[in-house]
Amino acid sequence: MSRARVHNFSISLDGFATGEGLSRDAPFGHAGERLHEWMFATRWWHERVGEPGGTSGLDDALVRQFTPGIGAEIMGAGKYGYPGWHEDQEWKGWWGPNPPFHTPTFILTHHTRPSIEMEGDTTFHFLDTSPAKALDTAREAAGGQDVRIGGGPTVIRDFLAAGLIDHMHVAVVPIVLGRGVRLWDGLEDLETDYDVEATSSPSGVTHLTVTRSGQ
Amino acid sequence: MSRARVHNFSISLDGFATGEGLSRDAPFGHAGERLHEWMFATRWWHERVGEPGGTSGLDDALVRQFTPGIGAEIMGAGKYGYPGWHEDQEWKGWWGPNPPFHTPTFILTHHTRPSIEMEGDTTFHFLDTSPAKALDTAREAAGGQDVRIGGGPTVIRDFLAAGLIDHMHVAVVPIVLGRGVRLWDGLEDLETDYDVEATSSPSGVTHLTVTRSGQ
Repeated sequence: MSRARVHNFSISLDGFATGEGLSRDAPFGHAGERLHEWMFATRWWHERVGEPGGTSGLDDALVRQFTPGIGAEIMGAGKYGYPGWHEDQEWKGWWGPNPPFHTPTFILTHHTRPSIEMEGDTTFHFLDTSPAKALDTAREAAGGQDVRIGGGPTVIRDFLAAGLIDHMHVAVVPIVLGRGVRLWDGLEDLETDYDVEATSSPSGVTHLTVTRSGQ
Repeated sequence: MSRARVHNFSISLDGFATGEGLSRDAPFGHAGERLHEWMFATRWWHERVGEPGGTSGLDDALVRQFTPGIGAEIMGAGKYGYPGWHEDQEWKGWWGPNPPFHTPTFILTHHTRPSIEMEGDTTFHFLDTSPAKALDTAREAAGGQDVRIGGGPTVIRDFLAAGLIDHMHVAVVPIVLGRGVRLWDGLEDLETDYDVEATSSPSGVTHLTVTRSGQ
């Protein structure tokens, strides 16, 4: 069965997945890259950016689940671009000519535009629709494989609230951001439908896996 | 040096230390006892309530730090009693005739009353003062030993914001409470002054120790 999965989604101790003050120069606002340093330290990341080294422990094993079995991604408008990107006809996302998705990638936005083919089999499609319908569309594009729900926090919350997420990997980073956009809001009693496993890593991060009960 | 310490302070994944709807019958509101079940399962707790059994692993080792070296406790009015307790002249706290503190115990409240001597060396004193002055008073009463900051979340936040906490043990319970009183609000960048260590327990709880850097 095709599952909807979240991977490598990082939040602070106080539950923020992004900071305040997002802009073209600050994709995560005042959070900067602090939520993702644990990931940059892994061998997986080093391989992606063509650098030697990187850690090979628990963090690396978990980040590597990002790609296998995924046939499409869905992301929110805020993950695709800076506030106002929809007025910029040249904007093609944050990731350069060869984005790391390598599948059809669906952007949920009220400002649709024609699809954009990138290098490396990533094609950006723009959808103005509900989470459930977007997931149907992405599943069909994934050809029976799983669909990654890429974020940001508002999109993941919407998919969780609609009961559409099957598996989620969250990394809790030991910092207090204080402000930004929270992951857990509006999800009271989530644990009644999901099995939650917490594993602390020597890096200081605590990995949560949140898996639909019975799956 | 006498330190100010927090122990066994439990929060949900979304950072709530107590729920909504607090009353005499529901000290933690809609959260019920869900934040503390991990603690009730320990051998330490079983010993306190005179029952055999209980777990002897990581959770038990950590809860046992509650007592050693502590010479006084400070707590907020909301930990001492239900909303409105100050109008109840018979109210002597939630803990029966022999409370588990066994030291001078200072309640921060705008509704002071004469001190109350309980069994087992617990005496309740009522103070209407600032965190810093309350800590001075409690330190003197502790005779050089450490002072436990007992909670609730608002009191711990106030003491953290004033830079008065030296060590804090927080247990993160894998539930999403959705509403209540949060621990981390207003503490942006707390990690710059504290070392944070996270250790997941087989029980499902993740223990955080938050220790002032350099101590």
